[in-house]
Amino acid sequence: MGLDPDMDKIPSHLHDFDDPAFEFNKAIIDATRDYCVAYKPNMAFYECLGLNGWKALEKTIKYIGVDHFIIADAKRGDIGNTSAKYARAFFETLKCDAITVAPYMGKDSVEPFTQFPGKWVILLALTSNPGALDFQFIVTGPGEKLYEKVLETSAGWGTKENMMYVVGATRPEMLLTIRQHVPDHFLLVPGIGAQGGNLEEVSAYGLNADVGLLINASRSVLYASSGNDFAQAAGNEAMKLADEMKRILQKKK
Amino acid sequence: MGLDPDMDKIPSHLHDFDDPAFEFNKAIIDATRDYCVAYKPNMAFYECLGLNGWKALEKTIKYIGVDHFIIADAKRGDIGNTSAKYARAFFETLKCDAITVAPYMGKDSVEPFTQFPGKWVILLALTSNPGALDFQFIVTGPGEKLYEKVLETSAGWGTKENMMYVVGATRPEMLLTIRQHVPDHFLLVPGIGAQGGNLEEVSAYGLNADVGLLINASRSVLYASSGNDFAQAAGNEAMKLADEMKRILQKKK
Repeated sequence: MGLDPDMDKIPSHLHDFDDPAFEFNKAIIDATRDYCVAYKPNMAFYECLGLNGWKALEKTIKYIGVDHFIIADAKRGDIGNTSAKYARAFFETLKCDAITVAPYMGKDSVEPFTQFPGKWVILLALTSNPGALDFQFIVTGPGEKLYEKVLETSAGWGTKENMMYVVGATRPEMLLTIRQHVPDHFLLVPGIGAQGGNLEEVSAYGLNADVGLLINASRSVLYASSGNDFAQAAGNEAMKLADEMKRILQKKK
Repeated sequence: MGLDPDMDKIPSHLHDFDDPAFEFNKAIIDATRDYCVAYKPNMAFYECLGLNGWKALEKTIKYIGVDHFIIADAKRGDIGNTSAKYARAFFETLKCDAITVAPYMGKDSVEPFTQFPGKWVILLALTSNPGALDFQFIVTGPGEKLYEKVLETSAGWGTKENMMYVVGATRPEMLLTIRQHVPDHFLLVPGIGAQGGNLEEVSAYGLNADVGLLINASRSVLYASSGNDFAQAAGNEAMKLADEMKRILQKKK
């Protein structure tokens, strides 16, 4: 579950609270807790609120508790000594379990995130947005595109126990190629719902023996209703996705 | 001037203050104000301090004031609607003038930053770290490497009035190629000092008719001394760089 409290989209009555972002998150967490294994707050939605956003984020992470995996969707990455500071920010200060990282700056920008026992780096491979076509599909060798080069090169920077990849649900057929490069890694798959990704297709191409997929939905669940029933509507949408996932997994057995 | 308050490196007496990061920055800003045109806080050094870091950052930006250009070294980038939130975070909430952005997610991840009048996006092209070799130098076409492809493709996403590029000083000869692709854009050049970049070489290859270079130094100035004289030492280092730059510009006339 994405946790992206957008002040332009949350139900208007929440603006009466001291901390609308946290109130929204709290209700969403209560309604979806039983239907998801992980929460993924995207930092942009907190940073644009300044100090209050940071406070809302800290409270949200605390409220989630220890029964769910927490992914900081931060898309960070910097020179080695600076990435090490980001790793401390998200793994120690904020106590997240995983962080999304951009690959452009290469090995020393990613490795500091792999040095924390029990923590995960989730590297961008193939993203769900239109702009993915600008660079990620560039041909970089015989029958090889940049996103494949990223997978091949980076797979050795960590293990399947501390690295995952972001692979957008909007291009499910690409999961076939991706599974050739990284058969065993878990994949974080955003883009289900508002961005148009299809769970059935993603599962057909992406599942492995350990499941190997963390399917994310954000807007389609969070903003299922803009009324007072927003949390209940979100719970229903999350339950539908969880049921669909359960059905797909049972069929696969 | 980079403004990267590293709690492991700042003079020990500063830890007695309520806000060591801000105390450090304040002294550095006072000592270097006359020798630089811009300040570049790197977000990692603030985020790893949590809420206190965010407060220190806000105070620092206010303390810099309006006479210097302020670059948020954030290396952000996300799908369009999320990048728009980051743009608001850095341009409206934090009131920075510019932000560094990673190119991997393509056009819709970068464009939201170009929509703010008077603000700048600084896109990573060729970074100063060892990991730059992993992907940025991949051959993407006849005589063309990925960092060149990024320059060519992205140059049309903005103008020379709202876009710059990050080009590391550690590979100055590459500036010749870069100037073929983007003759008129300003370049933000990190890597002078601690990372080994050479100002004379960078200028020889990178200067254009409008100067076109924003040269950054961070560690070599900030941590010139670890004693009580740290600010004075930083001021001296900054003055030396400013003098060297002045000399180079005068020679060029």
